[in-house]
Amino acid sequence: MPKKVDHARRRLDIARVAEGLVYDKGMDGLTMRDVARGMGCSLSVILHYFESKLDLLVFTHRLVRHRAEAGLVKALEEGQPARACFEHLLPLDEQRWRDWYTWLAFWGMSSQAGEVASEHVAATVESADIFLRIIRHGQARGEIDTAFDAAALAIDMQILCNGLAGLVAQGREAWPAERQLAHFRRHYAALIRR
Amino acid sequence: MPKKVDHARRRLDIARVAEGLVYDKGMDGLTMRDVARGMGCSLSVILHYFESKLDLLVFTHRLVRHRAEAGLVKALEEGQPARACFEHLLPLDEQRWRDWYTWLAFWGMSSQAGEVASEHVAATVESADIFLRIIRHGQARGEIDTAFDAAALAIDMQILCNGLAGLVAQGREAWPAERQLAHFRRHYAALIRR
Repeated sequence: MPKKVDHARRRLDIARVAEGLVYDKGMDGLTMRDVARGMGCSLSVILHYFESKLDLLVFTHRLVRHRAEAGLVKALEEGQPARACFEHLLPLDEQRWRDWYTWLAFWGMSSQAGEVASEHVAATVESADIFLRIIRHGQARGEIDTAFDAAALAIDMQILCNGLAGLVAQGREAWPAERQLAHFRRHYAALIRR
Repeated sequence: MPKKVDHARRRLDIARVAEGLVYDKGMDGLTMRDVARGMGCSLSVILHYFESKLDLLVFTHRLVRHRAEAGLVKALEEGQPARACFEHLLPLDEQRWRDWYTWLAFWGMSSQAGEVASEHVAATVESADIFLRIIRHGQARGEIDTAFDAAALAIDMQILCNGLAGLVAQGREAWPAERQLAHFRRHYAALIRR
């Protein structure tokens, strides 16, 4: 395997281990030593791939985010209705719940650190962009009135998804998939009603 | 000062120091040693008041939450309109921004720990209760149609406030108070429109 590809692949493997550990222990409890243990290698090997815990967490956050964004783009390209596209993002199943867990854990990291702040900005800008594409697609399909300001509506959809996931994060047992969908759909309908 | 009062007061003082440190360093960077340094006392004194960092963080979260809830209840008892009551919660100024910062940091803590999970549940239940009082107050004042299910609407308001604050958390510079209020008010109006 070419050295560069191998390097990139190893970083992905390490990030996947980190993702599981964030879920089990929180951002707070995670140590680079745990990651080394999880990978079955030494701490110095991990430090060869990621120079700090912060560096690893930023990379892990980006990995989880890109996976979820790819799901949204796929739904969009398959021509699913706008509402269904957004629903792919909700913490309805174990995988998506874990994704949200990683994002929420990251929100609470000190944004004093430059890399964290730039990843926060990238996350907001890229997701706003995909949300905007979904809204425009809904407008083109006649699901959403074209008189709406698509950019403003995209932000309202971000508010809705983030807010719902934030509540679910605080008490998962109270939020089975059907309850999440019922709230999402009522709230969504209110936002696109003229 | 009676011993019990002194004990409670010292815990509040320590939590206030922890609150500032969470803001500066994130949940992750905070150590009990930093708290001791901030209080100008030894680590063993801190450990006399809080048996672990987790114990201190749960207490700090509750402190910040109760302060914000008291602001909401005050607005309600002064007879402010429902919308204005909710607006007291948004991260419009430095103090409220810091409050949200502490909450969001806490959302990302592993809910595997029992104390964290119970504080999450208490936070959701108590804030849902206050939100419900505000909706009913708005209904009694004729601001919100009484045909709405007040409990469901209270949850939509939690989604709205949490979601907006979550976005603001990811890029504060992009969200001056006027922009927050513009989104909040448009979104609020959509939810209470019949």
